[in-house]
Amino acid sequence: MSPKITTELLKQLRQVMKSPKYVQEPVQAYIVPSGDAHQSEYIAPCDCRRAFISGFDGSAGTAIVTEQHAAMWTDGRYFLQAAHQMDNNWTLMKMGLKDTPTQEDWLVSVLPEGSKVGVDPFIIPADQWKRMSKALRSAGHDLVPVKENLIDTIWTDCPQRPCKPLITLDLSYTGVSWRDKIVALRSKMAERKVLWFVVTALDEVAWLFNLRGSDVEYNPVFFAYAVIGMNTIRLFIDGDRMMDPAVREHLQLDSTLEPEFKIQVLPYGSILSELQAVGAGLSPKEKVWLSDKASYALTEAIPKAYRYLTPYTPICIAKAVKNSSETEGMRRAHIKDAVALCELFNWLEKEVPKGTVTEIIAADKAEEFRSQQKDFVELSFATISSTGPNGAIIHYKPVPETNRTLSVNEIYLLDSGAQYKDGTTDVTRTMHFGTPSAYEKECFTYVLKGHIAVSAAIFPNGTKGHLLDSFARSALWDCGLDYLHGTGHGVGSFLNVHEGPCGISYKTFADEPLEAGMIVSDEPGYYEDGSFGIRIENVVLVIPAETKYNFKNRGSLTFEPLTLVPIQTKMIDVNLLTQKECNWVNDYHRKCREVIGAELERQGRHEALRWLIRETEPLVRV
Amino acid sequence: MSPKITTELLKQLRQVMKSPKYVQEPVQAYIVPSGDAHQSEYIAPCDCRRAFISGFDGSAGTAIVTEQHAAMWTDGRYFLQAAHQMDNNWTLMKMGLKDTPTQEDWLVSVLPEGSKVGVDPFIIPADQWKRMSKALRSAGHDLVPVKENLIDTIWTDCPQRPCKPLITLDLSYTGVSWRDKIVALRSKMAERKVLWFVVTALDEVAWLFNLRGSDVEYNPVFFAYAVIGMNTIRLFIDGDRMMDPAVREHLQLDSTLEPEFKIQVLPYGSILSELQAVGAGLSPKEKVWLSDKASYALTEAIPKAYRYLTPYTPICIAKAVKNSSETEGMRRAHIKDAVALCELFNWLEKEVPKGTVTEIIAADKAEEFRSQQKDFVELSFATISSTGPNGAIIHYKPVPETNRTLSVNEIYLLDSGAQYKDGTTDVTRTMHFGTPSAYEKECFTYVLKGHIAVSAAIFPNGTKGHLLDSFARSALWDCGLDYLHGTGHGVGSFLNVHEGPCGISYKTFADEPLEAGMIVSDEPGYYEDGSFGIRIENVVLVIPAETKYNFKNRGSLTFEPLTLVPIQTKMIDVNLLTQKECNWVNDYHRKCREVIGAELERQGRHEALRWLIRETEPLVRV
Repeated sequence: MSPKITTELLKQLRQVMKSPKYVQEPVQAYIVPSGDAHQSEYIAPCDCRRAFISGFDGSAGTAIVTEQHAAMWTDGRYFLQAAHQMDNNWTLMKMGLKDTPTQEDWLVSVLPEGSKVGVDPFIIPADQWKRMSKALRSAGHDLVPVKENLIDTIWTDCPQRPCKPLITLDLSYTGVSWRDKIVALRSKMAERKVLWFVVTALDEVAWLFNLRGSDVEYNPVFFAYAVIGMNTIRLFIDGDRMMDPAVREHLQLDSTLEPEFKIQVLPYGSILSELQAVGAGLSPKEKVWLSDKASYALTEAIPKAYRYLTPYTPICIAKAVKNSSETEGMRRAHIKDAVALCELFNWLEKEVPKGTVTEIIAADKAEEFRSQQKDFVELSFATISSTGPNGAIIHYKPVPETNRTLSVNEIYLLDSGAQYKDGTTDVTRTMHFGTPSAYEKECFTYVLKGHIAVSAAIFPNGTKGHLLDSFARSALWDCGLDYLHGTGHGVGSFLNVHEGPCGISYKTFADEPLEAGMIVSDEPGYYEDGSFGIRIENVVLVIPAETKYNFKNRGSLTFEPLTLVPIQTKMIDVNLLTQKECNWVNDYHRKCREVIGAELERQGRHEALRWLIRETEPLVRV
Repeated sequence: MSPKITTELLKQLRQVMKSPKYVQEPVQAYIVPSGDAHQSEYIAPCDCRRAFISGFDGSAGTAIVTEQHAAMWTDGRYFLQAAHQMDNNWTLMKMGLKDTPTQEDWLVSVLPEGSKVGVDPFIIPADQWKRMSKALRSAGHDLVPVKENLIDTIWTDCPQRPCKPLITLDLSYTGVSWRDKIVALRSKMAERKVLWFVVTALDEVAWLFNLRGSDVEYNPVFFAYAVIGMNTIRLFIDGDRMMDPAVREHLQLDSTLEPEFKIQVLPYGSILSELQAVGAGLSPKEKVWLSDKASYALTEAIPKAYRYLTPYTPICIAKAVKNSSETEGMRRAHIKDAVALCELFNWLEKEVPKGTVTEIIAADKAEEFRSQQKDFVELSFATISSTGPNGAIIHYKPVPETNRTLSVNEIYLLDSGAQYKDGTTDVTRTMHFGTPSAYEKECFTYVLKGHIAVSAAIFPNGTKGHLLDSFARSALWDCGLDYLHGTGHGVGSFLNVHEGPCGISYKTFADEPLEAGMIVSDEPGYYEDGSFGIRIENVVLVIPAETKYNFKNRGSLTFEPLTLVPIQTKMIDVNLLTQKECNWVNDYHRKCREVIGAELERQGRHEALRWLIRETEPLVRV
């Protein structure tokens, strides 16, 4: 993969940074965050402005361009990828390492006195604006909103914003109607004494109305905002998709409804002016609830005294706790997904020794097997199909320039998942199709011990996920090893594969406590630059745990794996496992054999079934 | 222990809350934090205003009195104690439990519209003021500074502020001279481009000048502030203690010094006006560094644009990393402390069966044995000597009303420590002088497993202590048990027994990463209300760890116990330990026997030596 040459683009950007056509006063620095106007993690091509200006297209990163410098902040998952994709104009700022400056500190160190730093107010979240603005102001600089996005002004072949048809989800998938979700939301609003709630995150709009879309690859969402009042519902959405009779019926647009459930459909682009009108009409004590991650532009539309900001919205929190229809859907999706992966691994085992399977072919084959399953919609993220040294690039995606052939001499890491109409999957398995070295097995077994330590953990109700993160690392730490990413993220139900408000990470973000019904991933790893990568990932459901005692009557929780795909026993050094860990693996494999075996049988996939049975033979400690 | 009757006091307080003599406008609520003007945890009798108004004298708690209500917020260590000490006028707010409102939320729920909430601006830290003020303002109320402390106006027999002689510490104790500490501080100030640093915490003043005092019981500190400029040193301190020739010599008050090391001594009470003068004389870009926990009054003395606030000061961070003189001093102190405890436990073993030893007698005896050791100064906190149900009161202190007799039928918990001129100790042992029940042993063993999990943990450089907290709980969690306090706190070197910036807690306070040379406690526990309490506490030193591999060349850390007092093997259910845990106990006891045995021998304490040898017999797993 050769880096993108950005010399000319940076020159153009630096010109518009001074052009009175776009900025009231010249800006000495311009920030290009990776998000869109909805603070989405996965974004549409038209919103990939940071990738356009820098070449680095990982899912997380912030670019800052000054008159002399261009710098990119990203986290441990992307250090190698960013270094590969960016040319010498760019300095890579490795977040999480001790000596890496924050964006604010770096700006203060390079800017001339009294500088202006520009940013698109629709793209920067209000909380980031506040922090950045404060830090800059205290050093004598100013953060200023630049209304026209400066990247868009130099991006001559920028693609159109997508506007694809919608999918309606009935009660059998969602468990709760959109009307009941509105009622529940209004009751949360009443509790907090707010009159309005602004839905800015795309997955929150989709969840609230039981609709899905395909405007953003991998995320079944559509570009829209909503503003919910105590008696009104406004949906801001473009295109003729509201003409679809199924959608009109689903939203009851043509029915005579009680006025408080009547949905008013408005153009996507009118959100700012409508919100400003709401803001202008407020009386004292009337509050508007927004996420503190909503864009600075929308947040500013509401006068400060009327804002009620929280890190997580009531929709985000309600969405995270899956009801029984959603949980059952997730179970079904994971069974189908496991069937596809058993087929894939059985196929790889036969084909890899021939030397004809590349990372891209393997990824495509995985998609092919998944697409044979009922209610398959699309992948849930770009498949990470990586072998040998590519495995050490944590969020690697094979492209022709890097595409490596799988062999019996290298570790193969596959992190993949799909959107099914009944659920979202995300699973990583690390396989060897020849004979792994003792060192590879040792590292794999430490990662497995960490995976089990989280999956089997029992913890009190009210525990936040970050308190479990060290369990995943302890076996690695004992030998001086570690991995530079979090251990788990929330997973949506036929929605985004990464969702808040829970997770398992050493970073102490303001995560909400884990609750029965929440679904997260458990994915420790180990990566050796230039050699290999190991990761073992299951999606797990938070469930109540039975314990011998029950302190303060608080109750306990644990996890149940939804992912049921064998963990390659060939990679395990059994002697490094405790008996308890060994039992966990054997119990897990017994369940894989029972549940997935029955489905393989039902689908008549006999060869994959034989593979499954062989791969789930119990481990024996010597 | 009968509760303090506060009906009359609350009536008086509610009167002065409306009296134009003390408040410009009536306040509808008055906050009484537990701290003093230095945000000390341990405070002088004249500063015990919250205990005076409520009766609750635990080390942490905030009282709020409104026209109708009186409420007390405290944490899990003090739920039982507070409930015992307060009368029915008070509502106990149990912090850390799910349904307990924050102070702000509670105030908003009970106050009439547009209320004023008063607080002493010298007592409330600036960060708390900010949070509280913002929350109240957004609900239409106001937080207002009340210059005269309203508790003092009704406290007719309030004791005098102490002003005791100072102790000077030479290089053999401190390792670094006060001049070198000033030089290092100024270099940190230059790095951050600040011109002034305000020392507000009492232990930071003491550490900086290598002085100790005894103004506050248990903490060898003295009432003082300091303001350090790039060329000036101002020490704000009262009394004739600056007349002491040893102090004058130590601080070189009468020498011809370079002007930048000349200490200007000013009255304690002049800090506010001096700081206001500093604030008034600042030019743009001249900054003053303060802790964000400094009082609102002092913080306000510096105009906002000139303030540089950090959660931890450079002194706090430097003080936490002990140099070799301090570490060696801490080792010596812990050896002496262990000698005293071996004597005590040997004595208790003989005396308890006679039925004549009460909790108070045991605590006094512990102090007696400690006071026989070289360089003993005082205790480092009020001894927690508790048996049976009293053990479940986490920060219990025996008083005649609660004093219980030790017996062969109940668990005895002793959490105690001392200040020696060479170091500070803090150790908890839980003993049974008869035959513990299987359940008591089971609980003790889970606590021990947690203690070992932290003590033996290996973790990368840069790890924050809160990431280790769950290791201490895992064995308890597995059985549905837990404890409602943190696992460890920083320990000073002949200074406060609780100090920042590191610690081990499930609360994600902004702790600084652990570094080699830091000293913390490791003290998991288990408490059963009405029955017993178990805690096992060692003070441990952070040291580099040898590991098989060394990921990213980061290096690893682990802990070395400084406390060397046997852990009662009678209380251990050996079958619940892994072989590794068993080996840890045996290695620990071997070290106790070697190091403390040699010192007992040297001091001619032969009976205690025999006790030590018996108590350190290796465990054998069956």
